[in-house]
Formats: sequence, structure tokens, C-alpha cells
Amino acid sequence: MTESPAETAPSGVASGVTAGVSTGVTTGSARWSSELPVAFSDPVYLAAVVDLLGATAYGELSAFERLSDDSKMAPSLRDKVELARMAATEFGHFEGLTARLAELGVDPFDAMAEFVMPFEAFHRRTAPADWHEGLVKAYVGDGLAADFYREVAAFLDADTRAIILESLSDAGQSVFVVDRVRAAIAAEPRLGGRLALWGRRLMGEALSQAQRVAAERDALSALLSGGVDRPAMDLAAIGRLFNRLTENHCRRMEALGLSA
Amino acid sequence: MTESPAETAPSGVASGVTAGVSTGVTTGSARWSSELPVAFSDPVYLAAVVDLLGATAYGELSAFERLSDDSKMAPSLRDKVELARMAATEFGHFEGLTARLAELGVDPFDAMAEFVMPFEAFHRRTAPADWHEGLVKAYVGDGLAADFYREVAAFLDADTRAIILESLSDAGQSVFVVDRVRAAIAAEPRLGGRLALWGRRLMGEALSQAQRVAAERDALSALLSGGVDRPAMDLAAIGRLFNRLTENHCRRMEALGLSA
Repeated sequence: MTESPAETAPSGVASGVTAGVSTGVTTGSARWSSELPVAFSDPVYLAAVVDLLGATAYGELSAFERLSDDSKMAPSLRDKVELARMAATEFGHFEGLTARLAELGVDPFDAMAEFVMPFEAFHRRTAPADWHEGLVKAYVGDGLAADFYREVAAFLDADTRAIILESLSDAGQSVFVVDRVRAAIAAEPRLGGRLALWGRRLMGEALSQAQRVAAERDALSALLSGGVDRPAMDLAAIGRLFNRLTENHCRRMEALGLSA
Repeated sequence: MTESPAETAPSGVASGVTAGVSTGVTTGSARWSSELPVAFSDPVYLAAVVDLLGATAYGELSAFERLSDDSKMAPSLRDKVELARMAATEFGHFEGLTARLAELGVDPFDAMAEFVMPFEAFHRRTAPADWHEGLVKAYVGDGLAADFYREVAAFLDADTRAIILESLSDAGQSVFVVDRVRAAIAAEPRLGGRLALWGRRLMGEALSQAQRVAAERDALSALLSGGVDRPAMDLAAIGRLFNRLTENHCRRMEALGLSA
């Protein structure tokens, strides 16, 4: 449960990258070829980082859109503001991630382009039917995204990692969602069964889109499967990663009072 | 044109309030009766400030909603991000304004309640039919709101004024809108006539809602019409205020390449 990818990841990758960063200074106009950490001189590594940043950036942008959309279903102005605050927070993350892409000399919109379809497919398949489904999606989706970012951050250079981890701060939204969902189930116990099913569906759709993306993006696969100078993340490690994601998801469902 | 309400406002109001503030320290849990500037011990003044903050706060929240909604009409991801950024910025303003209300010991949601209807009426009557109408509305609406806030800020204590003026920073969005609208009119000149009409309608609806609110809210009227210890803002001054708002609106329409 406390096992982190940094502990299980091939140490050659993490330490090599970190060492490169500690001497490099990145500026707004830096290009990887001149001022960025040595790790970025490997085009496969650069492509993988660009993919990860592009995917997370578009994920944040689409989260902003969906949360502001879902906030319309709020039963009160107070509830609406809570979801709007989550949306604005996601947009802040988006800005940090795209700024990092620009630092790497990459157009953020080019980096995001490949990930528009999978995220839109996920959201189309998981459009909440009501306010409570929206709340569970916000909580489960945000938590799953945060877990995923934490996992991949371990494979990245220190600057990129810091930007991703920064975007994981929770401004107390979890408490709000847990509070609301538990109160709603207490008032109408049958809601619990429906929301539990909904949570399982969200997790299933998220994992299936993630697997599709990983299979289609060569650079991402290469990051996981290693390279000439980098050991692979073995199948057992990938299995443990999915285990951790699933366990955390179950814990979140429990926090909401739902069976996972 | 450069005449500001601070110059034309009765000096007794402004200086009295400011002097009170310079010795007062406001904390998160302060109540007006104990630690806030002496101006707040006048219940009419307090009620007027609460009304102004409540109205601007709800205005920012509804701007957030409309901008994120309108961003769906964007012809490209880049354009969508620009409008989403404006939305997120408005939400940041909302947070500052509601925090100030909480400092005054007032529940922000109570303070906003009376202003939900007029703002919703404005937005219902001015729902953009397409992306360009949305852009013009964002630009004209944002500019008009900023003008209005600047005007009323002159009547407020220094702390409240600072919070309102802070919320007026323009993160380069104007350039984006002007650029897009001008390019669209250059490509399709007939669009200019339709958007010019649209801009006039936006201004008309905004002023009519503002007048209705001012007439219905006693505290706001009292702020403008003075009290036992405060000279009134005379009719000539109110006329000049509307003049300034209209002149600035015309300048914005010109910037967009539209006849006002």
C-alpha cells in the first residue's frame, strides 16, 4: 500500500534523471538541446515526458469543463460554488502543465492533440445523470488522476515531477464530497447501490481508456518497457501499479460509504 | 474622461472612511462592531458595502459559469482555453470578494441572494448565439463590470477598495478577444453590423438591470443619496457616472472595430 513506484522503479532511471536535473537550470525559453537536463537529450525520454504532460494537461482541461458543466446540477448555490472551485483548481493545474511543455520547447496544443479523443470518450461514456453521480465522478476521477500522476512522476526529472506533484493539492474538496454523498445515502439508502455501481463503471472506463492510450503511444510504452540504457518496468511492477490504483479506488469508495 | 468618482465624490465620505481604515486591522474573524473601521459602525454604510460585494461576487460567479459555457462554442482548443482562462480568473475574483464578506461577519451566500435574479435575467436575455457573440459579450461585459467596480470602489473603505481593484487585472484576455473579433470581421464584413447591434443590446440590458437593482436596494440608494452625516451624490454626478460608463463602452466597441 505504501510501496511507491520510486521504490520499485529501476533505480538507474530515477537517479540518472535526477542527477541531470540538479545541475541544469531551466528557463522560460529553454530548449532541451541546450539548457535542459541531460535526460532530455534522449528523444524517447523527451517524447514520453511530452506525452505524459500533454495527457495530464488535457485531462485537467477536460476536468475543468466537466466540473463546471456538472456544477449546474447543484441543488444550491453553496454546492455549485464547491464544484466550480474544483473546476478552477483544475484549470490552475492545466496552466502549470502547459507552462512546463512550453519550457521544453513544445507547443502544448500539439502535445495534447492525441489525448483529446480518449478523454472525450471517457467523459461521453460517464456523463453523470444527476448531481450525486457528478459528485462521485469528481471525487473518484480526481483521486484516480492524482494517483496516476504520483505514479508517473516517479519516472520523471525533478522539475517536471515538482510541477505534477504541485497540482495534486486538495483544497478540502474531498471533505465536501464525502460529506454530501454520505448525507444523501443516509437520507435515501437505495442511492448507495446505484452510486456503488456508478463508481465501478467509472473505474472500468478510466482503466480501459488508459490501456488504449498506453498501447497506442509508442513513447509511453517505451518509458515503461525500458530502452538500451534504461531497464524496463517489469510486468510484476506494472501489476503492482494497477493493484495500488485499484486499492486506492476502493478506499475512496469506502470513504463515500459505497461498496467498491 | 479621466474624471474619477474619487474626485467628484463628497470628500467627507472618502476621507472619513479611509482614516478609519488606516488604524484598523482586519482579521479573518473580525466583526465590524469591534475591529473594523469606524465607517462600518454605520449600519447603512455596512449594508451598502455588503450589497456591493454581494452583487459583484455573484456577478463574478455567473461570469465564470457563462464563460465556461460559452467556451464550448470555441472553434479550436486554443480559443477554448482563452475563454476558460477568463472563467477561472473570474472565479478567483469571486473568492476574494466572498472572503471580504466573511471578514465583515457576513455569510457571502446571504449577501448574494438578492442579486441572483437580476444577473440571471441579464444572462438569459443576452445568451450568445455563436462564438463571436460570446467573445463580444465577454469583452464588453468584463469591461463594463470593471468600470462599474472602479466607480463604486471610490466610495468604499481602503481594504474593500483594494480587494475590488485587485480583481480588475486583465491577464491579456482583451488582446485575444480584440484580435479574434477583428479578424472575423475582416473575413466576413457583414458580421460587423450584427455584432455592433449585439454590443448595443448588451449595454442596454446591463444598464436596465443595474437601474432596477439600484432602485430596489435601499442601502445602495442611500449610499448614492447620502445620509445625515454624508452628503449625497447629486444628480449631476450620477449623470457623469453614466456618461463615463457609456464612453468607455464606446471605446471598447471601437477597439473591436464596431460602431457603438
